Amino acid sequence: MTPTIGVFDSGFGGLTVLRALAARLPQVRFAFLGDTARLPYGSKSRRTIARYAAQSAQFLVREQGAEFLVIACNTASALALDAIQDAVTVPVLGVIEPGASAARAASRSGDVLVIATDATVQSHAYAAACRAQGLRALEKACPLLVPLVEEGWTDQPVTAEVIRIYLNELNAEAAALGLNPDTLVLGCTHYPLLRPLIERAVPAGMRVIDSAEAAAEAAVRQFGGGIALERTAGQEARNGVLRCFATDSVEKFERLGSRFLDRPVGKVELVDLGG
Amino acid sequence: MTPTIGVFDSGFGGLTVLRALAARLPQVRFAFLGDTARLPYGSKSRRTIARYAAQSAQFLVREQGAEFLVIACNTASALALDAIQDAVTVPVLGVIEPGASAARAASRSGDVLVIATDATVQSHAYAAACRAQGLRALEKACPLLVPLVEEGWTDQPVTAEVIRIYLNELNAEAAALGLNPDTLVLGCTHYPLLRPLIERAVPAGMRVIDSAEAAAEAAVRQFGGGIALERTAGQEARNGVLRCFATDSVEKFERLGSRFLDRPVGKVELVDLGG
Repeated sequence: MTPTIGVFDSGFGGLTVLRALAARLPQVRFAFLGDTARLPYGSKSRRTIARYAAQSAQFLVREQGAEFLVIACNTASALALDAIQDAVTVPVLGVIEPGASAARAASRSGDVLVIATDATVQSHAYAAACRAQGLRALEKACPLLVPLVEEGWTDQPVTAEVIRIYLNELNAEAAALGLNPDTLVLGCTHYPLLRPLIERAVPAGMRVIDSAEAAAEAAVRQFGGGIALERTAGQEARNGVLRCFATDSVEKFERLGSRFLDRPVGKVELVDLGG
Repeated sequence: MTPTIGVFDSGFGGLTVLRALAARLPQVRFAFLGDTARLPYGSKSRRTIARYAAQSAQFLVREQGAEFLVIACNTASALALDAIQDAVTVPVLGVIEPGASAARAASRSGDVLVIATDATVQSHAYAAACRAQGLRALEKACPLLVPLVEEGWTDQPVTAEVIRIYLNELNAEAAALGLNPDTLVLGCTHYPLLRPLIERAVPAGMRVIDSAEAAAEAAVRQFGGGIALERTAGQEARNGVLRCFATDSVEKFERLGSRFLDRPVGKVELVDLGG
């Protein structure tokens, strides 16, 4: 039987993780849940986030039969990975550890930069995961980048200017701390859509790590043994094995989701998790 | 006894309305509730918003003794004013009607522009309120302006550029429709902080209407009869008659709120409304 991977996000940005997963595991069924009724998780307390994330994980496992879970949400990965692992019996992978591991593989100096949302930075989860890999990490919140992506301004000059301002501030702070960063981690599932602009804005020689790609690589390594890996299905079949769920307002999800997934998301099904 | 006005927002942007109210009614007690645990209302369904807004209104009336309510939230005013009026017995004023009335007073051509969040525009509440005043209104969502204000970039060139892009698009659309707009309504409680940049970006002669100021004027007219209007209290007393409540994460409220209120918000008290 075809295995099912459940992918969870507070919104639909995690579709960039699903895109990276589907490219590597075309024969797998995916169930994606965006907890859009309760986003953004970033402004909520750890206890609240843990409760929401656990409910969402249980929906994917119990209702959708997911045998593996990928938490494609930096805030939930940072604040609720333990709570999710306690709430379900299937293996659970977040996006932060894989991002830090990929940074470890890429960096020669051992100093890395991380850009993310305010909530992810305040959790310092990337700094902790990088430290566990022997890296020094400097994190910066870039709260304008998500709305710029959602506005569709992914190749506007004004977006390039916002990125330049953020990266200048970050590089100046790194220099003041005596760091020699050679790697930049994109610690938000929206940022892959800005990767071309970010690649142009970083200093020459700096590697850019996409935590969505890194999480997909880690999922293949971690879950690959449990699922048949023959690439039997073409694009047509792949389009049939994704179901998307949201807890409210499916309109924005349907309208913007395809930019993140890089193919139509189709009909998004509304589910009620309560609260 | 000193009367109490309850002011409600999904976040803390409504503090611009409270600022405008306090400048006109210095002797009144204010209780402000930001339903920060459940923001943004804009991505939620009408039914959910109505439930949240009714709970919040009841807190202000039942727990804080508010005798009047000002809904300092465009989304709640657009989608839940009826539900709030059903949930409490005190008079309730939203921000949209006053904004439309002020536009009516300001406009000679009868054509007005409205900028607001995505949710407010999708509700078309300003267009309907303007139509009821005999005005033709063209609305535009400007989703980057709230995060630019919250980032504190209220005098950055990049913010002026974003405003210029939005207003150019809006004016081009108005011209294509054969409109002759002479008035711009700021239909979001965050936008008063961008007023200097917006004033510089509009065509010469265009009037800018701040719906926070308009709502405060309407509150004085509507509620003024029920409350003692002698201006007895100075700044010191005014600082004592405001209590701020939030449903989650008071840190951001305390950090950013003073920019909106134009004086310290003091200690923000956490309340649990459930859900």
